[in-house]
Amino acid sequence: MADEAPFQFLHHELIQYIYKTAENGEAENGRNITKLENMGFRVGQGLMERLTKETARFKDELDVMKFICKDFWTCVFKKQIDNLRTNHQGIYVLQDNKYRLLSQLSAGKQYLDLAPKYLAFTCGLVRGALSNLGVKSIVTAEVSIMPACKFQVMIQKM
Amino acid sequence: MADEAPFQFLHHELIQYIYKTAENGEAENGRNITKLENMGFRVGQGLMERLTKETARFKDELDVMKFICKDFWTCVFKKQIDNLRTNHQGIYVLQDNKYRLLSQLSAGKQYLDLAPKYLAFTCGLVRGALSNLGVKSIVTAEVSIMPACKFQVMIQKM
Repeated sequence: MADEAPFQFLHHELIQYIYKTAENGEAENGRNITKLENMGFRVGQGLMERLTKETARFKDELDVMKFICKDFWTCVFKKQIDNLRTNHQGIYVLQDNKYRLLSQLSAGKQYLDLAPKYLAFTCGLVRGALSNLGVKSIVTAEVSIMPACKFQVMIQKM
Repeated sequence: MADEAPFQFLHHELIQYIYKTAENGEAENGRNITKLENMGFRVGQGLMERLTKETARFKDELDVMKFICKDFWTCVFKKQIDNLRTNHQGIYVLQDNKYRLLSQLSAGKQYLDLAPKYLAFTCGLVRGALSNLGVKSIVTAEVSIMPACKFQVMIQKM
């Protein structure tokens, strides 16, 4: 029922706190986004470590991405990613049609400006999860119509 | 399986962040505890609002406390409070034998000093949950043997 709610509320408080404390000094939005992204990264690493403790080894990159779309996403957001696309050259697009961390904001264009700060933590989360499996990546996100959301993962070949 | 993990990791990051940022200035431990407590309070309020949206009205104070021990605790920590005691005069003791936010620390006395910062948020959580139902309280916590933990709730009569 409200299974993801504690996480959601805590995430909201975290954003509020980071933005509030930044007002006294470092005013830039960019730094706050980076902070959130970094925190997401560490949480993603830890979570992935725990989730894969007893899973079989992954076949390939696509297999890893599927795990993120299903098991990992369900663990955090209590739902799966709705759509996964790839160009088979290291770019993956994960679409969540009802991204939980945005679902408390009114839909429509009015609050679209606020979206980035609700996406940064999750971008880090995915990057951290991949990093725990030895996959280096760049993760970005975009929202066109809330609360739908797309995460783009670019795998960095070593 | 790892249902409470995202919340647990995020909570840990929050503590780290608050303590790290405090090093550059406000050095006192007390202020950090208060910050965590306040964040817990707001999360508790929000959660309780959502959890009671469709429940019947509570009979009395004890009924409220039972709801906190069962539904509320399960929502946040994926387990119930193990033991609830009261003196029937506004004091309640909630005992959790395996408090999830401490379960990542080693048991034993070695890390007992660290316990308060892992308790503050939850004290606020309970206080906020009660406050949402119009019950004013003071909530404190103590740990004797980790990860067991007791929360004492003192109801403030108006």
